[in-house]
Amino acid sequence: MTLLELIEHEQKPFQTRTMKANVFRAPGQFGLEEKAIPPAGPGEAVIKVKLTTICGTDVHIIRGEYPVRPGLTIGHEAVGVIHELGPGVTGYEPGQRVLVGAITPCGQCELCLAGHLAQCGGPMGGWRLGNTWDGVQAEYFRVPFAQANLTVIPDDLADEEVILLADIASTGFSAAESGRVRLGDTVAVFAQGPIGLCATLGAKLMGASHIFAVDADRGRLQIAREFGATVTLLSEEDPVKKILELTGGAGVDVSIEALGLQTTFENALRVLAPGGTLSSVGVYSGHLQVPLEGIHAGLGDQTIVTTLCPGGKERMRRLMRLVETHRINLRPLLTHTFSLEEIAQAYQLFESRAQGVLKVAIRVP
Amino acid sequence: MTLLELIEHEQKPFQTRTMKANVFRAPGQFGLEEKAIPPAGPGEAVIKVKLTTICGTDVHIIRGEYPVRPGLTIGHEAVGVIHELGPGVTGYEPGQRVLVGAITPCGQCELCLAGHLAQCGGPMGGWRLGNTWDGVQAEYFRVPFAQANLTVIPDDLADEEVILLADIASTGFSAAESGRVRLGDTVAVFAQGPIGLCATLGAKLMGASHIFAVDADRGRLQIAREFGATVTLLSEEDPVKKILELTGGAGVDVSIEALGLQTTFENALRVLAPGGTLSSVGVYSGHLQVPLEGIHAGLGDQTIVTTLCPGGKERMRRLMRLVETHRINLRPLLTHTFSLEEIAQAYQLFESRAQGVLKVAIRVP
Amino acid sequence: MTLLELIEHEQKPFQTRTMKANVFRAPGQFGLEEKAIPPAGPGEAVIKVKLTTICGTDVHIIRGEYPVRPGLTIGHEAVGVIHELGPGVTGYEPGQRVLVGAITPCGQCELCLAGHLAQCGGPMGGWRLGNTWDGVQAEYFRVPFAQANLTVIPDDLADEEVILLADIASTGFSAAESGRVRLGDTVAVFAQGPIGLCATLGAKLMGASHIFAVDADRGRLQIAREFGATVTLLSEEDPVKKILELTGGAGVDVSIEALGLQTTFENALRVLAPGGTLSSVGVYSGHLQVPLEGIHAGLGDQTIVTTLCPGGKERMRRLMRLVETHRINLRPLLTHTFSLEEIAQAYQLFESRAQGVLKVAIRVP
Amino acid sequence: MTLLELIEHEQKPFQTRTMKANVFRAPGQFGLEEKAIPPAGPGEAVIKVKLTTICGTDVHIIRGEYPVRPGLTIGHEAVGVIHELGPGVTGYEPGQRVLVGAITPCGQCELCLAGHLAQCGGPMGGWRLGNTWDGVQAEYFRVPFAQANLTVIPDDLADEEVILLADIASTGFSAAESGRVRLGDTVAVFAQGPIGLCATLGAKLMGASHIFAVDADRGRLQIAREFGATVTLLSEEDPVKKILELTGGAGVDVSIEALGLQTTFENALRVLAPGGTLSSVGVYSGHLQVPLEGIHAGLGDQTIVTTLCPGGKERMRRLMRLVETHRINLRPLLTHTFSLEEIAQAYQLFESRAQGVLKVAIRVP
Repeated sequence: MTLLELIEHEQKPFQTRTMKANVFRAPGQFGLEEKAIPPAGPGEAVIKVKLTTICGTDVHIIRGEYPVRPGLTIGHEAVGVIHELGPGVTGYEPGQRVLVGAITPCGQCELCLAGHLAQCGGPMGGWRLGNTWDGVQAEYFRVPFAQANLTVIPDDLADEEVILLADIASTGFSAAESGRVRLGDTVAVFAQGPIGLCATLGAKLMGASHIFAVDADRGRLQIAREFGATVTLLSEEDPVKKILELTGGAGVDVSIEALGLQTTFENALRVLAPGGTLSSVGVYSGHLQVPLEGIHAGLGDQTIVTTLCPGGKERMRRLMRLVETHRINLRPLLTHTFSLEEIAQAYQLFESRAQGVLKVAIRVP
Repeated sequence: MTLLELIEHEQKPFQTRTMKANVFRAPGQFGLEEKAIPPAGPGEAVIKVKLTTICGTDVHIIRGEYPVRPGLTIGHEAVGVIHELGPGVTGYEPGQRVLVGAITPCGQCELCLAGHLAQCGGPMGGWRLGNTWDGVQAEYFRVPFAQANLTVIPDDLADEEVILLADIASTGFSAAESGRVRLGDTVAVFAQGPIGLCATLGAKLMGASHIFAVDADRGRLQIAREFGATVTLLSEEDPVKKILELTGGAGVDVSIEALGLQTTFENALRVLAPGGTLSSVGVYSGHLQVPLEGIHAGLGDQTIVTTLCPGGKERMRRLMRLVETHRINLRPLLTHTFSLEEIAQAYQLFESRAQGVLKVAIRVP
Repeated sequence: MTLLELIEHEQKPFQTRTMKANVFRAPGQFGLEEKAIPPAGPGEAVIKVKLTTICGTDVHIIRGEYPVRPGLTIGHEAVGVIHELGPGVTGYEPGQRVLVGAITPCGQCELCLAGHLAQCGGPMGGWRLGNTWDGVQAEYFRVPFAQANLTVIPDDLADEEVILLADIASTGFSAAESGRVRLGDTVAVFAQGPIGLCATLGAKLMGASHIFAVDADRGRLQIAREFGATVTLLSEEDPVKKILELTGGAGVDVSIEALGLQTTFENALRVLAPGGTLSSVGVYSGHLQVPLEGIHAGLGDQTIVTTLCPGGKERMRRLMRLVETHRINLRPLLTHTFSLEEIAQAYQLFESRAQGVLKVAIRVP
Repeated sequence: MTLLELIEHEQKPFQTRTMKANVFRAPGQFGLEEKAIPPAGPGEAVIKVKLTTICGTDVHIIRGEYPVRPGLTIGHEAVGVIHELGPGVTGYEPGQRVLVGAITPCGQCELCLAGHLAQCGGPMGGWRLGNTWDGVQAEYFRVPFAQANLTVIPDDLADEEVILLADIASTGFSAAESGRVRLGDTVAVFAQGPIGLCATLGAKLMGASHIFAVDADRGRLQIAREFGATVTLLSEEDPVKKILELTGGAGVDVSIEALGLQTTFENALRVLAPGGTLSSVGVYSGHLQVPLEGIHAGLGDQTIVTTLCPGGKERMRRLMRLVETHRINLRPLLTHTFSLEEIAQAYQLFESRAQGVLKVAIRVP
């Protein structure tokens, strides 16, 4: 960058233009506001959003159940086009279509260098967008550590085919990965929301044999079957008893908790074989009790592992290859489409769980 | 076991009956002979064979390329029925239909207890059947360490659906497993014989994205596509160059050698990305040279791992679950069927590689 | 085995001789009784005991806190001499001095073949001696699956040097192993009883840097220092706060729970860094609550792993090599010596925790 | 950074000052030259060197055996003081004393994000200093990706205590780590130069039992003993035969190659147990042949793994904790001290292997 370029770069803020962004104001209050389009600082990029979506966590935020600062733009899943590149970001150019993961690690702190990318800088520190930084439910957003977090999308892949890799699929698959599912393993997945469905798909992708999918909603169980479940069980019909019966009392090799409730956690543990792994991707609140018979008083050689959505461009690139090669098709999860202007309606539908909604696509013109 | 039972058991050898067995006599010489049906010693079982097959290793044996003692019954893949159980074998009963893996670990020596089941007692020691013990191309055979090596087959699975788990599938899949294929990994598989095809399938089962299958035979490449290959390449058309091109110069995450030749080993290394793993299931003879540029003079953070067919009833049970849940269908690999009486013809066809033969089913009446 | 030998073998029970054994009668009631010396069945061995010891679990048993059947001989740690070998046990001979682990896996069931030796046959199933089988606080005891569980002791190692490998050291070291301590890791160990001290030693052996040892007893903290702790902290002086301070707020890479209480579990979690592992070898009773801030609501990429004492002769042999090479010296843990006749006194002292007792050696003449 | 700061930053190059640097000119030709002190670009730092050393690789470079561009400053191990920080580097300040690893990963490319830090950007790409960038045998040097590569040294640690972590110790320890040495494993280490000695130390640190150290030099074997070897063997006295004898024919669990020759590689393989791992940190040239009996024709379930020096500030920080806690003392490896002015003499001594030289400390005033 020459001196002139640097000067120009610094002057940009003075020519601020504005954009629409979905902003959290107070518990129960949120909506579109005009905000300045952010500039790209050193190592950053600004993305013009094409497609975004709503996550269960966003709902917790607008309800005030997960605290963020008032004035924050919400959202952490986006496909867009590079609008501006800050100093030091190389190998990219404006106009490229990119996916940005929900988790944006720096890659250079001790936790990142140790491989804990989602814990960048400290607990959960890799989750910046829509949490500690302005998020992506907007016309533009700023990407921290852009060098590590911009994944160029091949031309032949549609926005809708890749957007769910940013969070839902990366998290859901990681449930199976952290559970270290091996060829022929038996797996139980508790809850079949978007993340649970991706956990079911992840277990299948990794070579599980019997996959027991549990949910309270028959519609979601139907989709679970399409995503790889070999047996589907309604939550109300004692799934623990049934899974133990169907495994001849042995229990499952890997048990996945994809909701964050005491009941699902407890059930996941009660069906776990000795030597097995409970892989948890739920977000818990209130109390969490460990049933001692589920862990054989601490003598069952079992593992409980928690995982926050893996991010970074290598993760996104790796998952994108699964789309490229038609190993996965996540489009069926995007059940409804709205424009950014209609985002309030989109939240309403998503919260209601009506009309068989799973994920909503929000188009940004 | 009561004293009377013990006495009866000991007397059995005096009432010897005979059976037909395919015996190695000398390099180039083999064929059916009458042999005594073996008795089941302590911890052993005798199986009445229903279905067996021929392995490439058997061909090496009859040619004298792999040395065994003259008089040995050949063969190590079998489905049959329990004919007799020796003292100390519990939880089974005569008449049950079982699969016995090619590798029959004791489970109780230091190497087994350390998890190296195929190296039971010493290098390659887990491979007994058709190697150091009489094998399974016979009407009956004796299973060492039966408690660890009898896998009951569920009634709804046909013999033909499970027999290839004994060696081909267990070995082929292990190529992907030892290569630690992760979701979205790129994989190259060199050679698409029965084991290579199962390696291709194993890579797909574990969630690979791009799978490059290489072979000299167009027919096998066609099957490779059905087994999960996303790109097929003829050996003669510089597959190393093509794989490097198709991966943008990066090379593959996991490279599988499924033949045992200098060329395939070398190619597998030359397409391997830094940090990647070459997983070898070939059997080598003569010289094996490591191309130094393929390992970046020893500085590429790469791994070369060799694997002998994993065995034992837990392995067989685990893979059988993949058949049960229709994750895999190995029947297409059994291209021809013969009776035990026709075993000479079966060898002839198998060696010739004519008629698109992959594996031959040998029915024992 | 010839027919005559088999007949002799079967007749042995008719020539029964008796021995002394420490028997559980009812909660609070136990003591020496005359029992028949057991015969060695197929695959079994009978050991003449030379040295045994008392474990915290034995105390739970005699108090009725851990239920076993009345009439059971207690104890699971023993060095002795092979008295008799049952049919099928090979490679050993009477008179050899052996160590038998507390956990005696069969090596041949699905769980064993999958590597979960302590879960042999089902949850905690590998723990037979002094639990579901007669134990070792006796003049003789019977070893199940002897082929997998007899470890010959080299002549130059004293009984006292190896007996604690049977349980205390195998369990304590496994706390560090299951925690996957890496070179330079920081480790906290909660509770410095015999197992906690071995966990501290295990962490040091595996290359930990800072090791924070916590206990309520200053004497035990002093020994913890000798076993590798770099910092010792009294339970009453807010060890969580201190460990967080001493790690600059980062917490530790591996946190070990070696007691089985809510407090120690909770503390172990509260000092755990994101991405870290809590390795638990305590036995829990009552309730177990997970503090949600300790696991960052399930988003901390953390692992909780439980381990039951690893057993089998390979494990014993491996640990014995650490004694052979003077990497470890466990003798200081054997603080007092009694004869079998004095076992009641030995229990009394062990329970009282008086006189700085850690483990008691019980000599069997 | 304000606009004014940016302008100042850009103008700095115009006020160039010079420094002394040890420069490669042509094979066999090198020496001190005057060079401009480099400026710190975005994300970079400039370090004023206090202490550096010579590596075997540097000798290969000056001999022309490892090709670098003429004019390059040599050297990749340094302790120094932060002289200047480029834009975007945060959390540091000039004057801090730091260690910089030989390998300087960016942390943000796909290979780094996948955990292959030494392969940053491509094969061996993490090795920049003294290879593709000007190195550290100079008064000042520039650190790429400083955010990921500056490790502040605690005041109470001397330069001499930490400098060898940059390469020798990180590489040597990684030999044991990549070999996955477990508690009680037997290990053989072929060659006891500085890296081999650190591999021996690494094996001990990770809990190996018997460690067989092999070298042609009795002096180095003596130090090997102090670093943890339990048995030392002269290269000329058939170490393969002796190691097999001493392990009762079993071979070792982990075999380390720390030189890069056909003989040592081959020996390392010939003593390797089935199921074992050969961990290689040597740099190979010419031919590399795999002895087929050493790998049991490809059926021994063995692993060969190569590792390039792990770098990055997390690695350096982790190893530094081993110095802090007195787990390691690397000072004995620094056998001689020179000033930068005397660097030619330092090379001469280092190449000669005379006077028991292991590593030379080069002080930069």
